[in-house]
Amino acid sequence: MPAPNSKHWLDEVKWNNDGLVAAIAQDIHSGRVLMMAWMNRESLALTIREQRAIYWSRSRQALWRKGESSGHVQVLHDIALDCDGDTLLLQVEQIGDIACHTGRQSCFYRGLQDEQWQSREPILKDPDQIYDK
Amino acid sequence: MPAPNSKHWLDEVKWNNDGLVAAIAQDIHSGRVLMMAWMNRESLALTIREQRAIYWSRSRQALWRKGESSGHVQVLHDIALDCDGDTLLLQVEQIGDIACHTGRQSCFYRGLQDEQWQSREPILKDPDQIYDK
Repeated sequence: MPAPNSKHWLDEVKWNNDGLVAAIAQDIHSGRVLMMAWMNRESLALTIREQRAIYWSRSRQALWRKGESSGHVQVLHDIALDCDGDTLLLQVEQIGDIACHTGRQSCFYRGLQDEQWQSREPILKDPDQIYDK
Repeated sequence: MPAPNSKHWLDEVKWNNDGLVAAIAQDIHSGRVLMMAWMNRESLALTIREQRAIYWSRSRQALWRKGESSGHVQVLHDIALDCDGDTLLLQVEQIGDIACHTGRQSCFYRGLQDEQWQSREPILKDPDQIYDK
């Protein structure tokens, strides 16, 4: 239980001008950084309540329950807030071992080599198959 | 060398309205996520040229050569771009093993427990000592 008169934990987050906070998802088993997305107050509260990553889609302007169409849910194991309160770090179990909509394990699949961003990670599942569910 | 007529790698980054891209630094040895900061075009180009993390300080509106006053330089080992091009992931060697200005290893030292953000990581060095250099 929070101490009396203490600030609500959601109020300690430093929301940006759009009411959002950056959220990094890291695979709790491999340690790989899987993706970075955004959360608003509602999605963060839901993430804690449901113990799964729920982001705010800036393009759709809607809650984004990660995995709702793909099945690639991110089960929450831990959440941390950084020193200036504007970034979250989630430790997640990545169901299906695919975080990226391209069918790859991580969204960070392009490395800089010879002055070009070069893909260096296999597609584990065809996106058409992921989103036909 | 880039192929003729190919897009410059800096132009493949999806800069936000402020001309910035999010940059996550991960410790190449421990796999810990150390911090998240921002880069503009100049700081990213310098990061690659000098092979160390150089951010853009939004508060100071100036280049931020990580470690320039603390000595806690981040030596660059690898850089990756995410699927939608708006977040970078750096693999770094963290000199001094301290990334956070509070004197902790990682900026993500507060975990959510009992509905409070609770510090759970030791201060390795007094910040007054870090910045007296």
